[in-house]
Amino acid sequence: MSDAFLSRLPAGLSVLSDTASLTRYSTDASGLRTGTPLLVARPATVAQVAALVTLCAEENRKITIAGGGSGLAGGAAPDDGDVVLSLELLNQIEEIDEAGGTALVQAGVVLETLCAAVEEKGWYFPLDLGARGSCQIGGNVATNAGGNRVLRYGTTRQLVLGLEVVLPDGTIMTMLDRTLKNNTGLDIKQLFIGTEGTLGIITRVVVRLFPRPQARRSALVGLASFAQIAPLLKAARSALPELSSFEVMWDNYVAAAAKVKGKPVPFEGVWPLTVLLETEGADTPMFHAGFDAFLESILENDTVQDAIVPQSLEQAADLWAIRDGIGALFPSLRPFVAFDIGIPLKDMGAFIEQTMAELNARWPYAGNLLFGHLGDGNLHLTTGHLHEADIVPVEEAIYALTCRFNGSISAEHGIGRLKKPFLHYSRDDTQRQVMQRIRQALNPQGLVNAARIID
Amino acid sequence: MSDAFLSRLPAGLSVLSDTASLTRYSTDASGLRTGTPLLVARPATVAQVAALVTLCAEENRKITIAGGGSGLAGGAAPDDGDVVLSLELLNQIEEIDEAGGTALVQAGVVLETLCAAVEEKGWYFPLDLGARGSCQIGGNVATNAGGNRVLRYGTTRQLVLGLEVVLPDGTIMTMLDRTLKNNTGLDIKQLFIGTEGTLGIITRVVVRLFPRPQARRSALVGLASFAQIAPLLKAARSALPELSSFEVMWDNYVAAAAKVKGKPVPFEGVWPLTVLLETEGADTPMFHAGFDAFLESILENDTVQDAIVPQSLEQAADLWAIRDGIGALFPSLRPFVAFDIGIPLKDMGAFIEQTMAELNARWPYAGNLLFGHLGDGNLHLTTGHLHEADIVPVEEAIYALTCRFNGSISAEHGIGRLKKPFLHYSRDDTQRQVMQRIRQALNPQGLVNAARIID
Repeated sequence: MSDAFLSRLPAGLSVLSDTASLTRYSTDASGLRTGTPLLVARPATVAQVAALVTLCAEENRKITIAGGGSGLAGGAAPDDGDVVLSLELLNQIEEIDEAGGTALVQAGVVLETLCAAVEEKGWYFPLDLGARGSCQIGGNVATNAGGNRVLRYGTTRQLVLGLEVVLPDGTIMTMLDRTLKNNTGLDIKQLFIGTEGTLGIITRVVVRLFPRPQARRSALVGLASFAQIAPLLKAARSALPELSSFEVMWDNYVAAAAKVKGKPVPFEGVWPLTVLLETEGADTPMFHAGFDAFLESILENDTVQDAIVPQSLEQAADLWAIRDGIGALFPSLRPFVAFDIGIPLKDMGAFIEQTMAELNARWPYAGNLLFGHLGDGNLHLTTGHLHEADIVPVEEAIYALTCRFNGSISAEHGIGRLKKPFLHYSRDDTQRQVMQRIRQALNPQGLVNAARIID
Repeated sequence: MSDAFLSRLPAGLSVLSDTASLTRYSTDASGLRTGTPLLVARPATVAQVAALVTLCAEENRKITIAGGGSGLAGGAAPDDGDVVLSLELLNQIEEIDEAGGTALVQAGVVLETLCAAVEEKGWYFPLDLGARGSCQIGGNVATNAGGNRVLRYGTTRQLVLGLEVVLPDGTIMTMLDRTLKNNTGLDIKQLFIGTEGTLGIITRVVVRLFPRPQARRSALVGLASFAQIAPLLKAARSALPELSSFEVMWDNYVAAAAKVKGKPVPFEGVWPLTVLLETEGADTPMFHAGFDAFLESILENDTVQDAIVPQSLEQAADLWAIRDGIGALFPSLRPFVAFDIGIPLKDMGAFIEQTMAELNARWPYAGNLLFGHLGDGNLHLTTGHLHEADIVPVEEAIYALTCRFNGSISAEHGIGRLKKPFLHYSRDDTQRQVMQRIRQALNPQGLVNAARIID
């Protein structure tokens, strides 16, 4: 059967089947391995994608879609015998509309490449996350990537104007809208945003651009208690319409991240909570005066206790290095669970309190580091120094608590294969049945990205 | 059969069946009448909605959903014998979260009521449209309402965090998320936003709030040519992160609207294009200085030719009265077609040129008024003084042109019943088939809002 399948592959299609390639495409950043693919196909045109998918549908051959490989949920791990469909050669920026502020790009374009290309034209694509140098825009859309600037610009969902998709039967569906508004029935593209390739393969994307910010200001502020977070966030959103980041870090996270990154510890040991604020805007006296006046006011009225204002780009980069330090901390925490919880801000304090109480009672030897995009209600808790046998019980405990607070077990990383056993904590029977009915309607053979999210 | 159906209605349900009520609920703001309902049911609880929908599914009885009745696409016009399900008694604001900035409201809450309630608490719900005093939040969500501030805040889709829906089989599906991020598979709420009630009945909504702006600044600027629009928009977005409205009006629209509203004509006869800009922000010296500096700069570098800055709230209201004057103009234009076209800004100039050429050649007696939310790529063309027999040919001509520019035949009003014959101009066979498969998956009996959008 393999031979018959191989003989029918579209002419001109780039195919890898050496052992090194098959191994390389057998996992993603999660490290999960579930099998070895038959081959890696790398179409360079949308027509090649469609031809390959049509062939797989006819031959009943399963497809695993591969983007940049930075996923944390095991979504890119193939089963034995899968065709891995890599988008890496479908990597052209087809159009940057300098009048309207949109870009039409192929799915395999690396995020950082797209950002650089539009900035050259005076525009800005605000999506930003740690994997910017390897993740692809198709994967960003398929996982509805979040990142550092959701508060102002939304998740990837809000940045997508149009999509082209190859359906699981090989049909090309082109919906390359370039405007903010199109109320002509079901907004079909929403079916493919955040569904991690389970309903089809994204081949091209139209993204919304913003005028390139000319200036960026940041500050680190120290707070005495969690109760100050919500008032600070509201004050910042009121005074700074350009507020793009609101990143909260707990003191033990700041100390550990600064140490691993070789940076000085801000507010050493003084404040239990540190918030990194960042705004983007025009490089005008008013922009800078507005930011300075805001800092002054929150210090004066005790909304915050202390503030560090970087005096150079290097100092600002140091603050972000601490915020981004979690990746460097992972090795020393193994075995660990990296949570990506969504909880309404009003419940966040109680959630953290109960979570810590349960972790401290049941796993007193665990090391728990906390930070999060709290402006988005997104908390990243990393629980490390565990035993392997603790992993699932720790996950069950925290997800059960998340469920009790009506939270999300994945605010931004997605479900993939790894979180599938826990999906019921965030999605009830009715919702999972609706997901299944939609899957059945669009991917009835179940050949494309099977066994992700739900069965 | 009616008697059997009536005898099974849920106990305590408010029902209207007098002739005046049946007539009143037989149409919406479009004026379309397609039949007379059996009765109008007004559930006051979600459980009553579910019981009624379950009954209708069992009895094979069609349901037409009624919100505030401000729709322009005939979506609320029932067929003979339909049950009209009005949400007007499901009108409680259940919760305003002052810490996180969210509100949980029932579908029948009137938009203006919601806005006032959250403003009292120091928050802001930015959705704003002419029908604010009658439209209901459930209808806003079901039609993905746009309006005056999409440029900054997005359409209703971007303002919805959570939804509760009664599915066509009577199942209540509760997804009352309160955070910006939840990547746990298909974002199911997107199925119900903008699908005009064809997949289920929205009963409760969680909306995102913003800190209440303390100040608002506006200006009317005059431009010599359409080519200046895109550079002005980009400059405004760069300099004014708070830019909330960018409304473009052509000279004959300004003259007609000013006259019908009894206001002085700005830039009388001098500039072919007028743009109404508005920003919202903190009432700080920086906010006002930033706006003034921007106006100065665009006058100095000839981005615009002239500017009028209102000196009082009354003067600002006069500018908006002209922008909102289209409703008052309709009676004198009958018979007319009010278009709601979406076109990328880069193609807007060419589209308008070809549209005007075709209208002038084929219907030289027509009066054509142009204005639009051009920041969103949304053009409202009203073609009036037609003969009744012209209506369909005019629609066909303009929608065919829209199709040639890959535009949308409805940027914000929706498809309903009235635009259904033209849907193929914006949605190809593949897209319409996908819509049908989704409809089949969720509304297989086809009893809820049948014959809207697609068959």
